Amino acid sequence: MKIGVFGTGAVGQTLAEKLDSLGHEVMMGTRDAQQSMVREGKDGMGRPPLKDWMAAHPKVKLGTFAEAAAHAQLLVNATSGFGAMEALKLAGEKNLEGKTMLDISNPLDFSKGFPPSLTVCNTDSLGEQLQRAFPHLKVVKGLNTLTAGLMVAPRLLSEEHHIFICGDDDDAKSEVCALLHSFGWTEAEIIDLGDITNARGTEQVLPIWVRLYGNLRTPMFNFRIVLASNAG
Amino acid sequence: MKIGVFGTGAVGQTLAEKLDSLGHEVMMGTRDAQQSMVREGKDGMGRPPLKDWMAAHPKVKLGTFAEAAAHAQLLVNATSGFGAMEALKLAGEKNLEGKTMLDISNPLDFSKGFPPSLTVCNTDSLGEQLQRAFPHLKVVKGLNTLTAGLMVAPRLLSEEHHIFICGDDDDAKSEVCALLHSFGWTEAEIIDLGDITNARGTEQVLPIWVRLYGNLRTPMFNFRIVLASNAG
Repeated sequence: MKIGVFGTGAVGQTLAEKLDSLGHEVMMGTRDAQQSMVREGKDGMGRPPLKDWMAAHPKVKLGTFAEAAAHAQLLVNATSGFGAMEALKLAGEKNLEGKTMLDISNPLDFSKGFPPSLTVCNTDSLGEQLQRAFPHLKVVKGLNTLTAGLMVAPRLLSEEHHIFICGDDDDAKSEVCALLHSFGWTEAEIIDLGDITNARGTEQVLPIWVRLYGNLRTPMFNFRIVLASNAG
Repeated sequence: MKIGVFGTGAVGQTLAEKLDSLGHEVMMGTRDAQQSMVREGKDGMGRPPLKDWMAAHPKVKLGTFAEAAAHAQLLVNATSGFGAMEALKLAGEKNLEGKTMLDISNPLDFSKGFPPSLTVCNTDSLGEQLQRAFPHLKVVKGLNTLTAGLMVAPRLLSEEHHIFICGDDDDAKSEVCALLHSFGWTEAEIIDLGDITNARGTEQVLPIWVRLYGNLRTPMFNFRIVLASNAG
Protein backbone atom coordinates (compact mmCIF):
# COMPACT_ATOMS: atom_id res chain seq x y z
CA MET A 1 0.00 0.00 0.00
CA LYS A 2 1.14 3.59 -0.57
CA ILE A 3 1.66 5.16 2.83
CA GLY A 4 2.59 8.72 3.72
CA VAL A 5 4.37 9.32 7.01
CA PHE A 6 4.37 12.92 8.25
CA GLY A 7 7.47 13.66 10.29
CA THR A 8 11.07 12.49 9.99
CA GLY A 9 11.92 12.27 13.71
CA ALA A 10 12.33 9.13 15.80
CA VAL A 11 8.67 8.13 15.51
CA GLY A 12 8.48 8.84 11.78
CA GLN A 13 11.68 6.91 11.08
CA THR A 14 10.59 3.95 13.19
CA LEU A 15 7.19 3.76 11.49
CA ALA A 16 8.61 4.32 7.99
CA GLU A 17 11.23 1.60 8.49
CA LYS A 18 8.64 -0.91 9.69
CA LEU A 19 6.18 -0.07 6.91
CA ASP A 20 8.98 -0.33 4.34
CA SER A 21 10.04 -3.71 5.71
CA LEU A 22 6.43 -4.89 5.35
CA GLY A 23 6.57 -4.06 1.64
CA HIS A 24 4.62 -0.81 1.62
CA GLU A 25 5.57 2.09 -0.63
CA VAL A 26 6.49 4.72 1.93
CA MET A 27 7.01 8.42 1.46
CA MET A 28 8.00 10.52 4.43
CA GLY A 29 6.75 14.08 4.46
CA THR A 30 8.58 17.04 5.92
CA ARG A 31 8.37 20.82 5.70
CA ASP A 32 11.36 21.28 3.42
CA ALA A 33 12.71 18.00 2.05
CA GLN A 34 15.77 19.58 0.45
CA GLN A 35 16.82 21.38 3.60
CA SER A 36 16.23 18.25 5.68
CA MET A 37 18.58 16.31 3.40
CA VAL A 38 21.48 18.76 3.55
CA ARG A 39 21.56 18.91 7.35
CA GLU A 40 24.90 17.60 8.69
CA GLY A 41 25.74 16.38 12.20
CA LYS A 42 23.53 14.95 14.88
CA ASP A 43 20.24 16.63 15.74
CA GLY A 44 19.09 17.86 19.14
CA MET A 45 18.18 14.30 20.15
CA GLY A 46 21.59 12.91 19.16
CA ARG A 47 20.29 11.23 16.02
CA PRO A 48 22.43 11.06 12.87
CA PRO A 49 21.54 13.29 9.89
CA LEU A 50 18.41 12.35 7.96
CA LYS A 51 20.41 11.82 4.77
CA ASP A 52 22.26 8.93 6.48
CA TRP A 53 18.93 7.35 7.47
CA MET A 54 17.55 7.83 3.94
CA ALA A 55 20.69 6.24 2.48
CA ALA A 56 20.16 3.22 4.73
CA HIS A 57 16.52 2.96 3.58
CA PRO A 58 16.75 3.43 -0.19
CA LYS A 59 13.18 2.42 -0.93
CA VAL A 60 11.69 5.06 1.36
CA LYS A 61 11.00 8.35 -0.43
CA LEU A 62 11.18 11.83 1.04
CA GLY A 63 8.95 14.67 -0.01
CA THR A 64 7.02 17.67 1.23
CA PHE A 65 3.94 17.12 3.40
CA ALA A 66 1.86 17.77 0.26
CA GLU A 67 3.83 15.25 -1.81
CA ALA A 68 3.62 12.59 0.90
CA ALA A 69 -0.12 13.18 1.26
CA ALA A 70 -0.71 13.06 -2.49
CA HIS A 71 1.31 9.82 -2.67
CA ALA A 72 -0.61 8.13 0.12
CA GLN A 73 -3.62 5.87 0.34
CA LEU A 74 -3.11 5.84 4.11
CA LEU A 75 -1.46 8.47 6.30
CA VAL A 76 0.49 8.30 9.53
CA ASN A 77 0.99 11.52 11.49
CA ALA A 78 4.27 11.17 13.37
CA THR A 79 5.03 14.87 13.73
CA SER A 80 5.41 16.52 17.09
CA GLY A 81 2.14 17.78 18.46
CA PHE A 82 3.44 21.29 18.02
CA GLY A 83 3.89 20.72 14.28
CA ALA A 84 0.85 18.60 13.53
CA MET A 85 -1.69 21.23 12.52
CA GLU A 86 0.82 23.08 10.34
CA ALA A 87 1.88 19.82 8.68
CA LEU A 88 -1.70 19.05 7.73
CA LYS A 89 -2.26 22.58 6.43
CA LEU A 90 0.85 22.26 4.28
CA ALA A 91 -0.31 18.83 3.11
CA GLY A 92 -3.41 20.49 1.74
CA GLU A 93 -7.05 19.67 2.29
CA LYS A 94 -7.43 18.12 -1.16
CA ASN A 95 -4.55 15.68 -0.62
CA LEU A 96 -6.07 14.59 2.69
CA GLU A 97 -9.69 14.27 1.61
CA GLY A 98 -11.31 10.91 2.25
CA LYS A 99 -8.10 9.36 3.56
CA THR A 100 -7.49 7.63 6.86
CA MET A 101 -4.81 9.10 9.10
CA LEU A 102 -3.35 7.30 12.10
CA ASP A 103 -2.50 10.21 14.41
CA ILE A 104 0.32 9.36 16.82
CA SER A 105 1.11 12.95 17.78
CA ASN A 106 0.83 14.26 21.31
CA PRO A 107 0.33 17.93 22.24
CA LEU A 108 3.46 18.10 24.37
CA ASP A 109 4.96 21.47 25.22
CA PHE A 110 8.62 21.23 26.22
CA SER A 111 9.13 25.01 26.11
CA LYS A 112 9.38 25.14 29.90
CA GLY A 113 11.58 22.03 30.16
CA PHE A 114 10.86 18.63 31.60
CA PRO A 115 8.30 17.38 32.38
CA PRO A 116 6.34 18.87 29.47
CA SER A 117 2.81 20.23 29.79
CA LEU A 118 0.06 19.76 27.23
CA THR A 119 -0.93 22.50 24.78
CA VAL A 120 -4.51 21.21 24.80
CA CYS A 121 -6.29 18.86 27.20
CA ASN A 122 -9.32 18.20 29.39
CA THR A 123 -12.25 19.45 27.29
CA ASP A 124 -10.49 19.16 23.93
CA SER A 125 -7.58 17.29 22.38
CA LEU A 126 -5.17 17.53 19.49
CA GLY A 127 -6.90 14.60 17.80
CA GLU A 128 -10.19 16.49 17.89
CA GLN A 129 -8.58 19.73 16.71
CA LEU A 130 -7.14 17.97 13.67
CA GLN A 131 -10.44 16.23 12.95
CA ARG A 132 -12.38 19.51 13.21
CA ALA A 133 -9.90 21.37 10.98
CA PHE A 134 -10.04 18.61 8.32
CA PRO A 135 -13.53 17.13 8.47
CA HIS A 136 -12.99 15.04 5.32
CA LEU A 137 -9.88 13.39 6.73
CA LYS A 138 -10.61 10.32 8.86
CA VAL A 139 -8.52 10.78 11.98
CA VAL A 140 -7.82 7.70 14.08
CA LYS A 141 -5.88 8.49 17.23
CA GLY A 142 -3.61 5.63 18.22
CA LEU A 143 -0.14 4.45 19.26
CA ASN A 144 0.37 7.73 21.14
CA THR A 145 0.75 6.12 24.57
CA LEU A 146 4.01 4.21 24.13
CA THR A 147 7.53 4.59 22.79
CA ALA A 148 8.21 4.21 19.05
CA GLY A 149 10.23 1.01 19.37
CA LEU A 150 7.27 -0.75 20.96
CA MET A 151 4.69 0.66 18.53
CA VAL A 152 6.08 -1.51 15.74
CA ALA A 153 7.36 -4.41 17.85
CA PRO A 154 4.86 -5.14 20.62
CA ARG A 155 6.32 -8.60 21.20
CA LEU A 156 9.41 -6.98 22.74
CA LEU A 157 7.28 -7.13 25.89
CA SER A 158 6.80 -10.71 26.99
CA GLU A 159 3.14 -10.41 27.95
CA GLU A 160 -0.07 -8.98 26.56
CA HIS A 161 -0.26 -5.19 26.81
CA HIS A 162 -2.66 -2.62 25.47
CA ILE A 163 -3.03 0.28 23.07
CA PHE A 164 -6.04 2.51 22.53
CA ILE A 165 -7.61 3.74 19.33
CA CYS A 166 -10.44 6.18 18.81
CA GLY A 167 -12.02 7.98 15.92
CA ASP A 168 -15.35 8.82 14.33
CA ASP A 169 -15.12 6.50 11.31
CA ASP A 170 -15.44 2.74 11.83
CA ASP A 171 -13.95 1.81 8.46
CA ALA A 172 -10.94 3.99 9.14
CA LYS A 173 -10.48 2.28 12.50
CA SER A 174 -10.65 -1.13 10.80
CA GLU A 175 -7.99 0.01 8.36
CA VAL A 176 -5.75 1.14 11.22
CA CYS A 177 -6.37 -2.10 13.11
CA ALA A 178 -5.23 -4.10 10.07
CA LEU A 179 -2.03 -2.08 10.04
CA LEU A 180 -1.55 -2.62 13.77
CA HIS A 181 -2.07 -6.36 13.38
CA SER A 182 0.68 -6.35 10.75
CA PHE A 183 2.97 -4.83 13.41
CA GLY A 184 2.20 -7.73 15.74
CA TRP A 185 -0.63 -6.32 17.86
CA THR A 186 -3.32 -8.89 18.62
CA GLU A 187 -7.01 -8.05 18.50
CA ALA A 188 -7.25 -8.33 22.29
CA GLU A 189 -4.48 -5.77 22.72
CA ILE A 190 -6.24 -3.01 20.76
CA ILE A 191 -8.94 -1.27 22.79
CA ASP A 192 -11.33 0.80 20.69
CA LEU A 193 -12.49 3.53 23.07
CA GLY A 194 -15.04 5.02 20.70
CA ASP A 195 -15.22 8.41 18.99
CA ILE A 196 -12.42 10.94 18.59
CA THR A 197 -13.26 12.73 21.86
CA ASN A 198 -11.56 9.80 23.57
CA ALA A 199 -8.28 11.34 22.41
CA ARG A 200 -8.65 13.52 25.53
CA GLY A 201 -8.18 10.37 27.55
CA THR A 202 -5.23 8.93 25.65
CA GLU A 203 -3.36 12.22 25.23
CA GLN A 204 -3.70 12.86 28.96
CA VAL A 205 -1.88 9.59 29.59
CA LEU A 206 1.29 11.40 28.55
CA PRO A 207 1.77 13.31 31.82
CA ILE A 208 2.08 10.05 33.75
CA TRP A 209 3.97 8.39 30.88
CA VAL A 210 6.76 10.95 31.01
CA ARG A 211 6.96 10.68 34.81
CA LEU A 212 7.14 6.89 34.59
CA TYR A 213 9.82 7.20 31.91
CA GLY A 214 11.89 9.27 34.35
CA ASN A 215 11.14 6.89 37.20
CA LEU A 216 11.75 3.60 35.36
CA ARG A 217 14.74 5.03 33.44
CA THR A 218 13.58 3.35 30.24
CA PRO A 219 10.86 4.11 27.69
CA MET A 220 10.45 0.37 27.01
CA PHE A 221 7.27 -0.10 29.00
CA ASN A 222 3.57 -0.04 28.36
CA PHE A 223 0.26 -0.26 30.17
CA ARG A 224 -1.61 -3.49 30.52
CA ILE A 225 -5.22 -3.39 31.65
CA VAL A 226 -5.76 -6.08 34.26
CA LEU A 227 -9.37 -7.16 34.74
CA ALA A 228 -10.87 -9.07 37.64
CA SER A 229 -11.40 -12.60 36.37
CA ASN A 230 -15.10 -12.51 37.23
CA ALA A 231 -15.66 -9.03 35.83
CA GLY A 232 -17.23 -7.95 32.58
CA MET B 1 -3.85 3.75 64.98
CA LYS B 2 -6.38 6.59 65.12
CA ILE B 3 -7.41 7.36 61.56
CA GLY B 4 -9.70 10.06 60.23
CA VAL B 5 -11.48 9.46 56.94
CA PHE B 6 -12.89 12.54 55.23
CA GLY B 7 -15.97 11.69 53.20
CA THR B 8 -18.77 9.21 53.76
CA GLY B 9 -19.36 8.16 50.14
CA ALA B 10 -18.41 4.88 48.48
CA VAL B 11 -14.67 5.50 48.80
CA GLY B 12 -14.91 6.73 52.39
CA GLN B 13 -17.08 3.78 53.43
CA THR B 14 -14.80 1.25 51.71
CA LEU B 15 -11.69 2.69 53.33
CA ALA B 16 -13.28 3.09 56.74
CA GLU B 17 -14.57 -0.50 56.70
CA LYS B 18 -11.15 -1.87 55.77
CA LEU B 19 -9.32 0.25 58.33
CA ASP B 20 -11.84 -0.78 61.00
CA SER B 21 -11.38 -4.45 60.11
CA LEU B 22 -7.62 -4.01 60.53
CA GLY B 23 -8.18 -2.82 64.10
CA HIS B 24 -7.73 0.92 63.63
CA GLU B 25 -9.83 3.46 65.52
CA VAL B 26 -11.68 5.11 62.66
CA MET B 27 -13.68 8.32 62.65
CA MET B 28 -15.34 9.41 59.44
CA GLY B 29 -15.64 13.14 58.92
CA THR B 30 -18.47 14.88 57.13
CA ARG B 31 -19.82 18.42 56.85
CA ASP B 32 -22.77 17.90 59.12
CA ALA B 33 -22.71 14.59 60.97
CA GLN B 34 -26.19 15.00 62.43
CA GLN B 35 -27.79 15.79 59.10
CA SER B 36 -25.94 12.89 57.43
CA MET B 37 -27.36 10.51 60.03
CA VAL B 38 -31.00 11.52 59.65
CA ARG B 39 -31.05 11.12 55.87
CA GLU B 40 -33.52 8.41 54.80
CA GLY B 41 -33.69 6.49 51.53
CA LYS B 42 -31.03 5.75 48.99
CA ASP B 43 -28.69 8.50 47.83
CA GLY B 44 -28.02 9.62 44.25
CA MET B 45 -25.73 6.63 43.68
CA GLY B 46 -28.32 4.13 44.95
CA ARG B 47 -26.54 3.55 48.23
CA PRO B 48 -28.52 2.95 51.45
CA PRO B 49 -28.69 5.71 54.09
CA LEU B 50 -25.49 6.38 56.03
CA LYS B 51 -27.19 5.51 59.31
CA ASP B 52 -27.66 1.93 58.08
CA TRP B 53 -23.96 1.72 57.19
CA MET B 54 -22.97 3.17 60.57
CA ALA B 55 -25.24 0.66 62.35
CA ALA B 56 -23.47 -2.15 60.50
CA HIS B 57 -20.06 -0.77 61.55
CA PRO B 58 -20.56 0.05 65.24
CA LYS B 59 -16.90 0.68 65.99
CA VAL B 60 -16.58 3.39 63.33
CA LYS B 61 -17.32 6.87 64.65
CA LEU B 62 -18.84 9.75 62.73
CA GLY B 63 -18.01 13.39 63.32
CA THR B 64 -17.42 16.69 61.63
CA PHE B 65 -14.33 17.15 59.49
CA ALA B 66 -12.78 19.01 62.43
CA GLU B 67 -13.60 16.22 64.88
CA ALA B 68 -12.27 13.53 62.54
CA ALA B 69 -9.08 15.52 61.98
CA ALA B 70 -8.59 16.15 65.69
CA HIS B 71 -9.12 12.44 66.39
CA ALA B 72 -6.62 11.31 63.78
CA GLN B 73 -2.94 10.47 63.77
CA LEU B 74 -3.31 9.73 60.06
CA LEU B 75 -5.83 11.14 57.59
CA VAL B 76 -7.45 9.78 54.46
CA ASN B 77 -9.16 12.22 52.10
CA ALA B 78 -11.96 10.32 50.39
CA THR B 79 -14.14 13.31 49.57
CA SER B 80 -15.07 14.21 46.02
CA GLY B 81 -12.55 16.48 44.38
CA PHE B 82 -15.18 19.19 44.42
CA GLY B 83 -15.47 18.98 48.21
CA ALA B 84 -11.83 18.39 49.13
CA MET B 85 -10.61 21.94 49.73
CA GLU B 86 -13.72 22.89 51.71
CA ALA B 87 -13.40 19.74 53.82
CA LEU B 88 -9.84 20.62 54.75
CA LYS B 89 -10.81 24.20 55.55
CA LEU B 90 -13.58 22.94 57.83
CA ALA B 91 -11.15 20.47 59.41
CA GLY B 92 -9.02 23.43 60.44
CA GLU B 93 -5.34 24.08 59.91
CA LYS B 94 -4.49 23.31 63.52
CA ASN B 95 -6.10 19.86 63.40
CA LEU B 96 -4.18 19.03 60.21
CA GLU B 97 -0.78 20.36 61.23
CA GLY B 98 2.09 17.90 60.97
CA LYS B 99 -0.19 15.02 60.00
CA THR B 100 0.05 12.76 56.95
CA MET B 101 -2.96 12.69 54.61
CA LEU B 102 -3.48 10.08 51.94
CA ASP B 103 -5.37 12.06 49.29
CA ILE B 104 -7.53 9.82 47.10
CA SER B 105 -9.68 12.62 45.69
CA ASN B 106 -9.86 13.45 41.99
CA PRO B 107 -10.87 16.84 40.58
CA LEU B 108 -13.74 15.43 38.53
CA ASP B 109 -16.44 17.77 37.28
CA PHE B 110 -19.66 15.93 36.42
CA SER B 111 -21.67 19.16 36.05
CA LYS B 112 -21.84 18.65 32.28
CA GLY B 113 -22.57 14.93 32.51
CA PHE B 114 -20.51 11.96 31.51
CA PRO B 115 -17.63 11.76 30.83
CA PRO B 116 -16.53 14.29 33.46
CA SER B 117 -13.86 16.89 32.86
CA LEU B 118 -11.22 17.94 35.38
CA THR B 119 -11.49 21.15 37.41
CA VAL B 120 -7.70 21.42 37.46
CA CYS B 121 -5.04 19.70 35.34
CA ASN B 122 -1.95 20.02 33.18
CA THR B 123 0.17 22.64 35.00
CA ASP B 124 -1.44 22.11 38.43
CA SER B 125 -3.37 19.46 40.29
CA LEU B 126 -5.75 19.07 43.20
CA GLY B 127 -3.02 17.36 45.20
CA GLU B 128 -0.79 20.39 44.77
CA GLN B 129 -3.60 22.82 45.55
CA LEU B 130 -4.30 21.06 48.84
CA GLN B 131 -0.59 20.91 49.69
CA ARG B 132 -0.14 24.63 48.94
CA ALA B 133 -3.20 25.60 50.97
CA PHE B 134 -2.05 23.53 53.97
CA PRO B 135 1.75 23.58 53.93
CA HIS B 136 2.03 21.90 57.34
CA LEU B 137 -0.10 18.95 56.24
CA LYS B 138 1.87 16.18 54.54
CA VAL B 139 -0.15 15.34 51.44
CA VAL B 140 0.52 11.98 49.79
CA LYS B 141 -1.50 11.48 46.62
CA GLY B 142 -2.38 7.87 46.08
CA LEU B 143 -5.04 5.24 45.31
CA ASN B 144 -6.80 7.75 43.04
CA THR B 145 -6.40 5.68 39.87
CA LEU B 146 -8.62 2.70 40.65
CA THR B 147 -12.01 1.80 42.03
CA ALA B 148 -12.59 1.68 45.79
CA GLY B 149 -13.13 -2.08 45.94
CA LEU B 150 -9.67 -2.69 44.52
CA MET B 151 -7.96 -0.04 46.68
CA VAL B 152 -8.42 -2.18 49.77
CA ALA B 153 -8.36 -5.62 48.11
CA PRO B 154 -5.71 -5.64 45.38
CA ARG B 155 -5.61 -9.46 45.32
CA LEU B 156 -9.05 -9.43 43.67
CA LEU B 157 -6.97 -9.13 40.50
CA SER B 158 -5.04 -12.32 39.88
CA GLU B 159 -1.79 -10.69 38.78
CA GLU B 160 0.51 -7.91 39.87
CA HIS B 161 -0.83 -4.44 39.11
CA HIS B 162 0.28 -0.96 40.03
CA ILE B 163 -0.61 2.14 42.01
CA PHE B 164 1.21 5.43 42.15
CA ILE B 165 2.06 7.60 45.12
CA CYS B 166 3.64 11.02 45.23
CA GLY B 167 4.29 13.69 47.80
CA ASP B 168 6.94 16.00 49.16
CA ASP B 169 7.60 14.22 52.48
CA ASP B 170 9.42 10.88 52.45
CA ASP B 171 8.36 9.89 55.96
CA ALA B 172 4.73 10.54 55.07
CA LYS B 173 5.10 8.36 51.98
CA SER B 174 6.59 5.58 54.12
CA GLU B 175 3.63 5.87 56.47
CA VAL B 176 1.20 5.60 53.55
CA CYS B 177 3.13 2.67 52.09
CA ALA B 178 2.83 0.80 55.39
CA LEU B 179 -0.93 1.34 55.26
CA LEU B 180 -1.06 0.15 51.63
CA HIS B 181 0.94 -2.96 52.52
CA SER B 182 -1.64 -3.72 55.20
CA PHE B 183 -4.29 -3.63 52.43
CA GLY B 184 -2.34 -6.25 50.48
CA TRP B 185 -0.27 -4.12 48.11
CA THR B 186 3.24 -5.46 47.62
CA GLU B 187 6.27 -3.19 47.53
CA ALA B 188 6.71 -3.83 43.80
CA GLU B 189 3.15 -2.71 43.13
CA ILE B 190 3.58 0.77 44.65
CA ILE B 191 5.40 3.16 42.32
CA ASP B 192 6.69 6.28 44.06
CA LEU B 193 6.72 8.90 41.30
CA GLY B 194 8.37 11.61 43.38
CA ASP B 195 7.12 14.96 44.60
CA ILE B 196 3.52 16.18 44.75
CA THR B 197 3.64 17.70 41.24
CA ASN B 198 3.32 14.13 39.99
CA ALA B 199 -0.32 14.34 41.04
CA ARG B 200 -0.79 16.05 37.64
CA GLY B 201 0.12 12.74 36.08
CA THR B 202 -2.04 10.50 38.24
CA GLU B 203 -5.09 12.78 38.27
CA GLN B 204 -4.95 12.99 34.46
CA VAL B 205 -5.26 9.21 34.34
CA LEU B 206 -8.92 9.70 35.22
CA PRO B 207 -10.04 10.79 31.73
CA ILE B 208 -8.94 7.46 30.26
CA TRP B 209 -10.07 5.58 33.38
CA VAL B 210 -13.66 6.76 33.00
CA ARG B 211 -13.63 5.92 29.27
CA LEU B 212 -12.26 2.44 30.01
CA TYR B 213 -14.92 2.01 32.69
CA GLY B 214 -17.56 2.71 30.06
CA ASN B 215 -15.84 0.48 27.54
CA LEU B 216 -15.12 -2.50 29.81
CA ARG B 217 -18.48 -2.15 31.61
CA THR B 218 -16.84 -2.78 34.97
CA PRO B 219 -14.74 -0.66 37.32
CA MET B 220 -12.87 -3.77 38.49
CA PHE B 221 -9.71 -3.17 36.48
CA ASN B 222 -6.38 -1.54 37.01
CA PHE B 223 -3.22 -0.65 35.13
CA ARG B 224 -0.18 -2.87 35.17
CA ILE B 225 3.11 -1.45 33.93
CA VAL B 226 4.77 -4.03 31.69
CA LEU B 227 8.51 -3.61 31.26
CA ALA B 228 10.75 -5.12 28.60
CA SER B 229 12.62 -7.92 30.33
CA ASN B 230 16.00 -6.47 29.34
CA ALA B 231 15.06 -2.91 30.25
CA GLY B 232 16.05 -0.85 33.24
